[in-house]
Amino acid sequence: MREMHNERVGIFGASGYAGVELTRLVAHHGQLQLAFVASERHVGTPVAKLSGVTGFGPSTYVDFSAALSAARKCSAVFLATPADISLKIISELSASGVRIVDLSGALRLQDREAYRTFYGHEPAPVLLLQGAVYGLPELFRDQIRHAALIANPGCYPTAATLPLFPLLKQKLIRSEDLVINALSGASGAGRKASEDFSLVELHDNVKPYKVLTHQHTPEIEQSLSRATGSKVSVTFTPHLLPIPRGILCTSYARLEKGVAPTDLVGALQSAYRGEAFVKVLPRAEDVSLHGVIGTNECHLGVAVEPRANGRVVLVSAIDNLVKGAAGQALQNLNLMLGLEQGQGLVTLRRFH
Amino acid sequence: MREMHNERVGIFGASGYAGVELTRLVAHHGQLQLAFVASERHVGTPVAKLSGVTGFGPSTYVDFSAALSAARKCSAVFLATPADISLKIISELSASGVRIVDLSGALRLQDREAYRTFYGHEPAPVLLLQGAVYGLPELFRDQIRHAALIANPGCYPTAATLPLFPLLKQKLIRSEDLVINALSGASGAGRKASEDFSLVELHDNVKPYKVLTHQHTPEIEQSLSRATGSKVSVTFTPHLLPIPRGILCTSYARLEKGVAPTDLVGALQSAYRGEAFVKVLPRAEDVSLHGVIGTNECHLGVAVEPRANGRVVLVSAIDNLVKGAAGQALQNLNLMLGLEQGQGLVTLRRFH
Amino acid sequence: MREMHNERVGIFGASGYAGVELTRLVAHHGQLQLAFVASERHVGTPVAKLSGVTGFGPSTYVDFSAALSAARKCSAVFLATPADISLKIISELSASGVRIVDLSGALRLQDREAYRTFYGHEPAPVLLLQGAVYGLPELFRDQIRHAALIANPGCYPTAATLPLFPLLKQKLIRSEDLVINALSGASGAGRKASEDFSLVELHDNVKPYKVLTHQHTPEIEQSLSRATGSKVSVTFTPHLLPIPRGILCTSYARLEKGVAPTDLVGALQSAYRGEAFVKVLPRAEDVSLHGVIGTNECHLGVAVEPRANGRVVLVSAIDNLVKGAAGQALQNLNLMLGLEQGQGLVTLRRFH
Amino acid sequence: MREMHNERVGIFGASGYAGVELTRLVAHHGQLQLAFVASERHVGTPVAKLSGVTGFGPSTYVDFSAALSAARKCSAVFLATPADISLKIISELSASGVRIVDLSGALRLQDREAYRTFYGHEPAPVLLLQGAVYGLPELFRDQIRHAALIANPGCYPTAATLPLFPLLKQKLIRSEDLVINALSGASGAGRKASEDFSLVELHDNVKPYKVLTHQHTPEIEQSLSRATGSKVSVTFTPHLLPIPRGILCTSYARLEKGVAPTDLVGALQSAYRGEAFVKVLPRAEDVSLHGVIGTNECHLGVAVEPRANGRVVLVSAIDNLVKGAAGQALQNLNLMLGLEQGQGLVTLRRFH
Repeated sequence: MREMHNERVGIFGASGYAGVELTRLVAHHGQLQLAFVASERHVGTPVAKLSGVTGFGPSTYVDFSAALSAARKCSAVFLATPADISLKIISELSASGVRIVDLSGALRLQDREAYRTFYGHEPAPVLLLQGAVYGLPELFRDQIRHAALIANPGCYPTAATLPLFPLLKQKLIRSEDLVINALSGASGAGRKASEDFSLVELHDNVKPYKVLTHQHTPEIEQSLSRATGSKVSVTFTPHLLPIPRGILCTSYARLEKGVAPTDLVGALQSAYRGEAFVKVLPRAEDVSLHGVIGTNECHLGVAVEPRANGRVVLVSAIDNLVKGAAGQALQNLNLMLGLEQGQGLVTLRRFH
Repeated sequence: MREMHNERVGIFGASGYAGVELTRLVAHHGQLQLAFVASERHVGTPVAKLSGVTGFGPSTYVDFSAALSAARKCSAVFLATPADISLKIISELSASGVRIVDLSGALRLQDREAYRTFYGHEPAPVLLLQGAVYGLPELFRDQIRHAALIANPGCYPTAATLPLFPLLKQKLIRSEDLVINALSGASGAGRKASEDFSLVELHDNVKPYKVLTHQHTPEIEQSLSRATGSKVSVTFTPHLLPIPRGILCTSYARLEKGVAPTDLVGALQSAYRGEAFVKVLPRAEDVSLHGVIGTNECHLGVAVEPRANGRVVLVSAIDNLVKGAAGQALQNLNLMLGLEQGQGLVTLRRFH
Repeated sequence: MREMHNERVGIFGASGYAGVELTRLVAHHGQLQLAFVASERHVGTPVAKLSGVTGFGPSTYVDFSAALSAARKCSAVFLATPADISLKIISELSASGVRIVDLSGALRLQDREAYRTFYGHEPAPVLLLQGAVYGLPELFRDQIRHAALIANPGCYPTAATLPLFPLLKQKLIRSEDLVINALSGASGAGRKASEDFSLVELHDNVKPYKVLTHQHTPEIEQSLSRATGSKVSVTFTPHLLPIPRGILCTSYARLEKGVAPTDLVGALQSAYRGEAFVKVLPRAEDVSLHGVIGTNECHLGVAVEPRANGRVVLVSAIDNLVKGAAGQALQNLNLMLGLEQGQGLVTLRRFH
Repeated sequence: MREMHNERVGIFGASGYAGVELTRLVAHHGQLQLAFVASERHVGTPVAKLSGVTGFGPSTYVDFSAALSAARKCSAVFLATPADISLKIISELSASGVRIVDLSGALRLQDREAYRTFYGHEPAPVLLLQGAVYGLPELFRDQIRHAALIANPGCYPTAATLPLFPLLKQKLIRSEDLVINALSGASGAGRKASEDFSLVELHDNVKPYKVLTHQHTPEIEQSLSRATGSKVSVTFTPHLLPIPRGILCTSYARLEKGVAPTDLVGALQSAYRGEAFVKVLPRAEDVSLHGVIGTNECHLGVAVEPRANGRVVLVSAIDNLVKGAAGQALQNLNLMLGLEQGQGLVTLRRFH
């Protein structure tokens, strides 16, 4: 079966949590060959040490310089690197024809002013932004198939956008008053040598952070504005959970006038019919982190206020390292390479 | 010092999580004597086994019949029992003059129809409801001081009401569009011999439950309606956390017209100035479970949307077994008995 | 690829933790077809609900009666059932020629008296015991290849036996004074509707259980006695960890006279050279639960007392639901069916 | 009651985990006045931020220079500082007559060569070592009462020594073949800005560390040698648990000839009769972290091999920050100051 590995791919930033997950996914993909895994911090370290992967590709991490040379002989590369590093690598590889999936925030926001405000540094060049496709496959699959450069969505935006987008697009909920209350495991912050992220500080603790200032806010708004055709604002509050993995979003909206409460679950089911990785569950209470951890799935549930004030509660859950990062990146790559979208992803076991 | 124990109190339902916490608090209170601890399920079991308490009162659990006799010689009793059991005990003790703090939901809702809807069984008699005082000391202290029967608030209502009440009362936020997203540790559900509450099912999991149907919804609405003088509705979504203790509420409101964002923190500080158990922190991000676990404190924080749409985010945290149950019950009893409100409570150590 | 599914297998007891893990492993195995999944408690429940598995076999759980009929048309069945149920199913299927892997303790002990003592009920018939092969592939692979009935090892015995067996066999450590201190996640106890296994009781807790009386003790002794050729005794103490998965054993022995401390790691490496699922790590400190959770691997490490008293410390780790149950059961089945031993197992991703 | 605060004490290193716990204990002690809390890293930070303590002493952390001046007007100081810093402070205060409880390892080992080997740096001067009393009150109370300088025991040595010491002293178990398998929560390592101690790396993980090389080994051996009168060796293996607090030791020994298994629990009970902080539980299985977390107690249990090979299993548990550090330090100080040994400690609530 390994003879079929005819597409060579590499990973920059392979020692972070998303990079390690990508390493595992590519190694066991079946139709990809892992050409290199690059980590400036872990040059020479066995790949098996961080990822447990052995016998499916390179045995040690290489530096970015060696990786750039190797990248030119690849079909595609993943960038699980900070935004500024991603931009440098993209620039280096721009003439090479290598397909790129960038997991950083560098290319996600078309509004450069919003980028400046929320990220606090200079946005990517306009031309680069125009060439980048936002990689949320269930919403923008056709563009992704023809893309050479993918801005892989943020973890929160993936979980928040999937339930809201189709309901806004079909005018079933109002675009005002959107509240997104989000909870995330600690791996979302990346590997941290920080007291704040130590077990003793986080264990049994929950707290909000970056309240009303998180950089994923404009990313969510950008996607939802594509659904409505006009500018949408959201109130987004992320919280840190005392667990490593998973995102659960509870989003609050209001029914549009004349819409029956029962229309919503049907609308979500229609919107995602046939999608392997988005599942609409019968009740909001059925959605849980256990249902998605380890998989590339996003689970959705909806409830509508029975006491006639039209409040809608949407619950969505993903594994932040899979559908929220590495899994979605691979889903995008599969589409770009003309492979089955779910190759290497439909066989992922749920962990709990 | 132990000679000063001149008020005898007893606990019904002393082997549940709130009952155990009450046992510990009363044992080390300094001015109360623990006359009996009653548990139908654990008659004869050493109190030390469940609570770790030794040398500060009765050594084993007794049955309710023995407890009722003993109760008549007490100044006060706590009922950490299901609603129907609480009503029976209250009825038995009604002529005795014994003060009662009931931790169940039996007497919290004045609206008997709402009780029927949300609790699914018959409400308490009207006369009993009229005699019960809702025991949220920071808001209704004077009534509590003169009460003989306290309906101790629910854990979620305590955490949700404290930040919203003063802002609604002063008309700084609007009473429409209130969203309360709440997270709770598993002890809130009580002792459970249930697969659903097993470590394997809950660990690393988060999920919503009783979406739009939780019985604490009308309790929160009742208190907030007292703040505004008219009927307030809220959208309340509780979630179960993979930890034993703590409640964190993130509540969403809108500024009233003409109110400056900066007014809110000042208003909260004024409202709770001098309160030993409600602390207004500088930023919403400062509120965390770690800040309150083990104590009788409620921490509050507020943020206002900088992008001019007037959205307000309020964060509140309590230990559900202390300020959300046993601690608040003791605070109420201190007030009823004319003791210092914080006796046995201000010395509680934060755990983390 | 799915056309190659030419061996039909079924699972009895498919809704327990080991049964769910088996369901996932068989579904994604590549050369097995999942013919049925049986659970008396969950007849009619969607398999996806408990396991997340969809599209790879039967969609709901069936009862044991239906399963027995279906089993007769299968190549093999797994029994993830209590010992007494396993014996009944084995008896029903004895004439059918269906291969059986039994995950219960029913057939693990050849010493029927020890079974009576440690299990507290009647042992299996002698003839059945004589026909059963103990399924620890790295030690008894040849027998397994030719077996029709496998007694799949216990989780603790798997973790405890792998490091000790080769060192005892080669007379590098003494067979007296063996101490095995073992730690296990809570899924080892199976699904429990029990207060003792609730999150609140287990979280942040550690405690020993069944001290000196655990039924895995004679199972470990039986295997180690096969290594030495004479009766070996061990002191075995299991402890419950506040996590769902994983077993870590720390075993203590003494060097045989004349053996150099440095001989041990080499001996372990030689013993397991070429084994896909047993890895000898350079240092005892390198062994951790994170290294094995999600995989079928057992990691081993060894340290020898530098202060010349000859004490040896062996550390071993497995995922109790994979190498300690479902994964090893599949490894055994692969061998029995003449498939690659690691089919469906070498591609398992490490979770952490 | 606060008028009785007639002894002034200060804390150096007050922002570490043991220092924060000491701050809480001294604040609520009842007969001590907290004169200063010093932390070089957190000068000016509110004490409430790290500890939750308000209204019971100084409001911010001061530097060590200010603390040294203040210390001279105190009855006693606690040093929750690294060994080298402790030695400097002790030297500065040596002429002042201030009583000192040092929580570092600096003065625990009388064998300076062992100190060099296990700590890797220069031991304290001989004279200082000779003046220091090892502060395990249940074993060495008389010496502590008359001491001016206490070497507060390590967390592991406290948990390991209490069960073994009386059985060795009474020659009920043999002093050869002692194995101590120890498990600790992560706070034992102190505050860490380290990836290795991040929640993601530690959560759901267990692993051994410093196998056969941990610096608490000679400390345990030193105490046990005092019990037997001759040199005792132990094999000690610490493991890191995925929780913040607690130590559980499982120790293995052999019965001396002629000793009946049933003698051991009685011997332990006699040894610790009347001790407020050491409790001998009926069965080894009764010992758990939940039983001690939050308290100054050490729980002990014992089991003896029923199959006649004389193996003894001892289980002991403490809260590493209380009986294993701050609580024991306060117990020592109470004794030095002629106060009730349990003042400020017997009222500590169990947390679980």
